[in-house]
Amino acid sequence: KKQYRIAVIPGDGIGKEVMPEGLRVLETAAKKHGVSLHFDHFDFSSWDYYEKHGQMMPDDWKEKIGKHDAIYFGAVGWPAKIPDHVSLWGSLIKFRREFDQYVNLRPVRLMPGVPSPLANRKPGDIDFWVVRENTEGEYSSVGGRMFPDTDREFVTQQTVMTRTGVDRILKFAFELAQSRPKKHLTSATKSNGISITMPYWDERVEAMAKKFPGVKWDKYHIDILTANFVLHPDWFDVVVGSNLFGDILSDLGPACTGTIGIAPSGNINPEGDFPSVFEPVHGSAPDIAGQGIANPIGMIWSGAMMFEHLGEKEAGKSIVDAIERTLAERTLRTKDLGGNADTTACGKAVAEMV
Amino acid sequence: KKQYRIAVIPGDGIGKEVMPEGLRVLETAAKKHGVSLHFDHFDFSSWDYYEKHGQMMPDDWKEKIGKHDAIYFGAVGWPAKIPDHVSLWGSLIKFRREFDQYVNLRPVRLMPGVPSPLANRKPGDIDFWVVRENTEGEYSSVGGRMFPDTDREFVTQQTVMTRTGVDRILKFAFELAQSRPKKHLTSATKSNGISITMPYWDERVEAMAKKFPGVKWDKYHIDILTANFVLHPDWFDVVVGSNLFGDILSDLGPACTGTIGIAPSGNINPEGDFPSVFEPVHGSAPDIAGQGIANPIGMIWSGAMMFEHLGEKEAGKSIVDAIERTLAERTLRTKDLGGNADTTACGKAVAEMV
Ligand SMILES: CC(C)[C@H](C(=O)O)[C@@H](O)C(=O)O
Ligand SMILES: CC(C)[C@H](C(=O)O)[C@@H](O)C(=O)O
Repeated sequence: KKQYRIAVIPGDGIGKEVMPEGLRVLETAAKKHGVSLHFDHFDFSSWDYYEKHGQMMPDDWKEKIGKHDAIYFGAVGWPAKIPDHVSLWGSLIKFRREFDQYVNLRPVRLMPGVPSPLANRKPGDIDFWVVRENTEGEYSSVGGRMFPDTDREFVTQQTVMTRTGVDRILKFAFELAQSRPKKHLTSATKSNGISITMPYWDERVEAMAKKFPGVKWDKYHIDILTANFVLHPDWFDVVVGSNLFGDILSDLGPACTGTIGIAPSGNINPEGDFPSVFEPVHGSAPDIAGQGIANPIGMIWSGAMMFEHLGEKEAGKSIVDAIERTLAERTLRTKDLGGNADTTACGKAVAEMV
Repeated sequence: KKQYRIAVIPGDGIGKEVMPEGLRVLETAAKKHGVSLHFDHFDFSSWDYYEKHGQMMPDDWKEKIGKHDAIYFGAVGWPAKIPDHVSLWGSLIKFRREFDQYVNLRPVRLMPGVPSPLANRKPGDIDFWVVRENTEGEYSSVGGRMFPDTDREFVTQQTVMTRTGVDRILKFAFELAQSRPKKHLTSATKSNGISITMPYWDERVEAMAKKFPGVKWDKYHIDILTANFVLHPDWFDVVVGSNLFGDILSDLGPACTGTIGIAPSGNINPEGDFPSVFEPVHGSAPDIAGQGIANPIGMIWSGAMMFEHLGEKEAGKSIVDAIERTLAERTLRTKDLGGNADTTACGKAVAEMV
């Protein structure tokens, strides 16, 4: 029987507090579904590691975690101590690029017990996926500054879209749409304003759509698309966007369902040439770190996505079901959701429901 | 006594239907407040004009409307008949660039009678301005395609931010914040992902903030900022962003207050070297054009902003007050807001309330 080797990286702040609950639930679900997991723990990709070693990760980080079946990741970053471009670009974004995790996948689902900021929406009304291109696009490093410190000063930065990069994310998104009952894909564009890269994106969407005749698709400019997330969240099934547009939509979507505190994400290399990273959408939250009150659901749900990715669908589904049953009970939810459980109590509750 | 010369351009679709109501209300308010307006009507910047002349505007469009005190604009674009890059870049975006309308200003205000998609928000809870850079940034035309129709194909497009361009929009935004009771400015960034232009934007915000010690300011990454529009719309007073971020926020903001159908906007050249354009946020809406049911409030409210810009504050305020009183009556609202008035009835109602 196959044993999955998981690299565990708690990172910074509340990452360290939610990780034990994630592992607790993973272990429980694994045992119940006859899945064998082996965890290797790493302390890098954190401020503590940086303070000791002057860098975010050891030189041989790729050897250390590059052969694992997946990476289970807490949160990284602590802006008061270390600039984002050092912490994030030295770990999270490095993983995405160097492990070619070109899909960033995030569910947007209204869960029981989570008050939605939107009026009159019930669990079941909002249930879609955001598929984000995760390696190129607006997050390029190409550009620079000219005439510094003069009135003529200017900066430029290129958005870069490659045929390879665009086609593979669109293929993933169309396949996902095809696998779902509604078979509906929405593409985020802004071709009326961003006049070179976005028309190219649209062109590739049209070409890819021809290969998926069973999928209904539409496109919206990003401005009205964000408006429609608020006004008509029930319109969506699978939404695909560039690195930046996907980033925006996958924070806005969870906000529309009440909180980004419970949202999970996968940074996925679908071919399995490299390990994929599963992490909560929330960050390290320095303001509440150390108090034991962080909501562990984002971490736990990311574990469910990891099982799904490994092909252990039953184990993954049992966790999502357990999360729904836990959130439905006020006493088992954490304070941010009007409950009175602390991080550990909430994690234990999910584990018991699995 | 000064007479203001206004260029009137109804444009396409419902632009032609809401314009008469806008003019009706402008005339009524002008008479009441002793303001003298002269209207010159133009049929260009429309599909009809394009069909006849093969271009969106006459060659001498700048002479025709460049000396007016302001331009009152309906809507342009009809994607089924004419591509956006011809219609929009041939008129709307041309005005912004060639008349150096570097401020795009849009209010986000929850009005009486307009059901908000957000739970538990009342008129008064949401009341802020989005200030958008309107001439450079992500909407550049610099870039291109290489290796077409091969696997190596790629496109690039540069975001361009100039010292002049960034500083002047920030100055406008800080001044606006300083003039308001809360004196609070929020800057939209994404410096953790867009690693060259956005850190530059942040740098200029910090420099400008030093000149406005009375203004409290903060910044959010655009992803979490869109989330906060939904979760905490009461946090904001003046929000400033780049061309793209401002575009997104000024559709999302009005959506959070119920509809983009009533939102107004100003494309402003603050120095008055060129005329400014006042137009509703909504487009030409081909799907409902010709039925007489379009909501004229966005057009009318844009007229109020035009008065404000011309220095006729009393006249402007009387229109905004009249809009609020009209919207509060179900029978005077249009169908999109659950009322039963048609375009004309709604426009007449506002004119009577002025
Ligand atoms: C029509 C389009 C080019 C325009 C823009 O993106 O600027 C519109 O969305 C707006 O906000 O005025
Ligand atoms: C931290 C930041 C660089 C990152 C991103 O923009 O990709 C985050 O917002 C995310 O969505 O994972």
